[in-house]
Amino acid sequence: MGVDRIKIFDTTLRDGEQAPGCGMTIEEKLRVSYQLEKLGVDIIEAGFPASSEGDFQSVKLIAEKIKGCEIAGLCRANFNDIDRAWEAVKRGENPRIHTFIATSDIHLKHKLRKTQDEVLEIISAAVKHACRYTSNVEFSCEDATRTPLDFLCRAVDIAVKAGATTINIPDTVGYTVPDEFSLILRALRESVPELENVILSVHCHNDLGLAVANSITAVREGARQIECTVNGLGERAGNASLEELVMAIKVRQDKNPYVTNVVTEQIYPTSRLVSKVTGVAVQPNKAIVGANAFAHEAGIHQDGVLKERSTYEIMTPEEVGIPSNKIILGKHSGRHAFKNRLEEFGYFLEPDDFERAFNGFKDLADKKKYVFDEDIEALISDEFIRSTDHFKLISANFSSGTEMKPVATVKMVIGEVEVQASEYGDGPVDAAYKAIGKATGESPNLQSYIVSAITGGTDAQGEVHVRVEEDGAVSQGQGAHTDIVVASAKAYINALNKLRWRKQHPRKTTAKGI
Amino acid sequence: MGVDRIKIFDTTLRDGEQAPGCGMTIEEKLRVSYQLEKLGVDIIEAGFPASSEGDFQSVKLIAEKIKGCEIAGLCRANFNDIDRAWEAVKRGENPRIHTFIATSDIHLKHKLRKTQDEVLEIISAAVKHACRYTSNVEFSCEDATRTPLDFLCRAVDIAVKAGATTINIPDTVGYTVPDEFSLILRALRESVPELENVILSVHCHNDLGLAVANSITAVREGARQIECTVNGLGERAGNASLEELVMAIKVRQDKNPYVTNVVTEQIYPTSRLVSKVTGVAVQPNKAIVGANAFAHEAGIHQDGVLKERSTYEIMTPEEVGIPSNKIILGKHSGRHAFKNRLEEFGYFLEPDDFERAFNGFKDLADKKKYVFDEDIEALISDEFIRSTDHFKLISANFSSGTEMKPVATVKMVIGEVEVQASEYGDGPVDAAYKAIGKATGESPNLQSYIVSAITGGTDAQGEVHVRVEEDGAVSQGQGAHTDIVVASAKAYINALNKLRWRKQHPRKTTAKGI
Repeated sequence: MGVDRIKIFDTTLRDGEQAPGCGMTIEEKLRVSYQLEKLGVDIIEAGFPASSEGDFQSVKLIAEKIKGCEIAGLCRANFNDIDRAWEAVKRGENPRIHTFIATSDIHLKHKLRKTQDEVLEIISAAVKHACRYTSNVEFSCEDATRTPLDFLCRAVDIAVKAGATTINIPDTVGYTVPDEFSLILRALRESVPELENVILSVHCHNDLGLAVANSITAVREGARQIECTVNGLGERAGNASLEELVMAIKVRQDKNPYVTNVVTEQIYPTSRLVSKVTGVAVQPNKAIVGANAFAHEAGIHQDGVLKERSTYEIMTPEEVGIPSNKIILGKHSGRHAFKNRLEEFGYFLEPDDFERAFNGFKDLADKKKYVFDEDIEALISDEFIRSTDHFKLISANFSSGTEMKPVATVKMVIGEVEVQASEYGDGPVDAAYKAIGKATGESPNLQSYIVSAITGGTDAQGEVHVRVEEDGAVSQGQGAHTDIVVASAKAYINALNKLRWRKQHPRKTTAKGI
Repeated sequence: MGVDRIKIFDTTLRDGEQAPGCGMTIEEKLRVSYQLEKLGVDIIEAGFPASSEGDFQSVKLIAEKIKGCEIAGLCRANFNDIDRAWEAVKRGENPRIHTFIATSDIHLKHKLRKTQDEVLEIISAAVKHACRYTSNVEFSCEDATRTPLDFLCRAVDIAVKAGATTINIPDTVGYTVPDEFSLILRALRESVPELENVILSVHCHNDLGLAVANSITAVREGARQIECTVNGLGERAGNASLEELVMAIKVRQDKNPYVTNVVTEQIYPTSRLVSKVTGVAVQPNKAIVGANAFAHEAGIHQDGVLKERSTYEIMTPEEVGIPSNKIILGKHSGRHAFKNRLEEFGYFLEPDDFERAFNGFKDLADKKKYVFDEDIEALISDEFIRSTDHFKLISANFSSGTEMKPVATVKMVIGEVEVQASEYGDGPVDAAYKAIGKATGESPNLQSYIVSAITGGTDAQGEVHVRVEEDGAVSQGQGAHTDIVVASAKAYINALNKLRWRKQHPRKTTAKGI
């Protein structure tokens, strides 16, 4: 690897997934992993294996299936966590153990209740233990940017001497500013000359809106790995956004003479998939992947753009994979055209599944004049990116309005049993949710409910994302249909199925990660 | 003013409003202006008076009503635009003329088709003309960061000599990186010593995710005005986000020893209001004002937060005005409690309006157990932040489901005439929109459709935002109701009313701004 190659370490499946309501099932995580491989990230942090049985199984499956990326498992700096992480990743192509402990005074005092010397001993023992399994060991000082510099240097020095081959400096609480981060990294490299022999990495949070700037500053100070997430997901205000930092490096090659392995044309499809799977919408004014990032209000400055694109565009939509001028499918499109389009999205279905998808497409084409890529995506994710369903919807009917009490009737299969229920509500969705609650016996708290039209036009499909919570377990469900009340019912049932999965795979630890 | 005071120049109503679908009516702009005054911004850029009659009227009204901020009007560097801007702002407390012209080669060649010398002459003449009206004149070099440095220095020098008292350096296309921006500003101050006698300003776009970092870097290089928007709205990926840069300065006082006049506790209410008025949702992982910015997944690291808040929080939700532990209103709450809550939001209603709002509140309290602040906000914006309605909904009824063809019936008043219409559709919303189309004769393109639950729980009100377009005119409508199909109908009718207003007040120019 040349000195100017930057490794992209994607933690969408770990730090991203830890954000409220971003939980993903095994199937969803695997689907995202395939896309991350296609995107060309170097390392996928697939989870925190000791945190739950579900996380363990996901990391294990991803390590077995994905061969184009290193797969990392996060673990606290103790032998049990490290053993569990290794157990999960060991079948991977070049598996990585990523172990961490906090080093700042505030964390030592309030969370760990340990002295600096005790922490140094833990680091040394943990890294050495991990190195018995593999030389691909990453060590992180949680809350590094609030750690006294001399202690940070000692911690890093001990980790390198114990055998860590990647040293990560996280800005865990999104506190640092670029100049300061520069000085920290410079001081570290001066005090710990052995750092030259390992990869220096950073992991920045965006609490003050500076995660991308801090990450790029770090690269100039010698960092050769950046930890980041798709759409900037992650705890609180999220992590450095993969798409922003990759494009900042690419667009400003003159100022940032580095390369990454990322296939930028896969950025937009990846962003869409992650948004769909997590249910977290991307705001229109989000850089690179927001709906307005390349849009111009009609009549205002399309003029300039038309005259010469570069007057207002520093990159093209095509460069980040935003489709343009594609043939739109409709009721006359055949199997072949549909199959091609699916394969462009990266969906290679078995013959039976393909027939099911094609029938769904034909039904939709009967209702809608144009079937857009987004409609096909919704159809596929509705049918194929699903946890194994315990609750299934057979049919649903509603009446509502300003002059009547809204009512809903649903017919469902629960396990093997068919059940029917009717309920009144404040609106048709409320009535549907009450009827589903009556049929299933489930009534979690509805934390959020978002509907968006998948494409423009009044015949658009509605896509509904709901987030439900019960006893601290949170799950997110999604459904699409031309009738938004039906889509709402499907999303709610999807969330109930996932909640059931989450309750069967509880988190075992309160540890947080970096 | 001490050297360390940074002026906050808010351009939500100009650059923010220019983003696709973010158009606001006069009433909405005035409402936002009152809130910006409360937030403590120094300058409100209220619009671009020469661009349309609507913009002119909005700027004029805001200049007449708002007395706690300077009001700026944007104008191209020509006498007509400048005259029009002055006409609009002149009744303000300390009105500002903000004139601009592009200085980069690419804009000179493709857009202006002028030589550098011609541009210098235009700058001199325009700034001198503006100075005949007031000494409060700002000059901006559009696309400054892609302008050859020597020409940028000459342009700035000429503007200062002609009398400009604020010089703004916009990163119009969001292209610059912090180190480079630093060098540009440093070179400018060295080449143009007269800059010491005027205010240096910056205006950064977020195309590469670096707008906040660039703005803060500029302050270190002597900038004493930052141009920004609430929620980071603006063209493409938007402008530097007001809330992020103000909090980055406040939280890192040790590294950024500057002050602003912003009342940080008004940040969250302002963010909510702007989101409501523009219909642009804030993503959950948005720094400072996103739903997850201060949220922690249950059981994962609430542990650390509970032990000691500062382990994972570098600022408190209260500091940015996120309400906590407030008394929630319900059906037993009286006039007094309701009035107090309204006044906390900044709504001081006339007695008749208050009675109408209170009746709406009572109706809602009958349907919902708890009436949250967000419900009250929705109610008020539904009833009082509205353009004068030509189309009004009287009643609406719907039937739909998986086994029937969805149908809707609406009764409306159009002007003075009562009209009724029924239509079938692909879903109840589609049916409702077709029925409304039949009743009104209006059928713009539906560009986007988003529903969110205003608060948690299945009895939550649904809030619908729609964006419609016809012949290049875009408008955004919003509606709230416990029945989302009714809310959808209300939002669509609101959008039709606004579109009618927009068509009556077309933009006259294709000029863009900085």
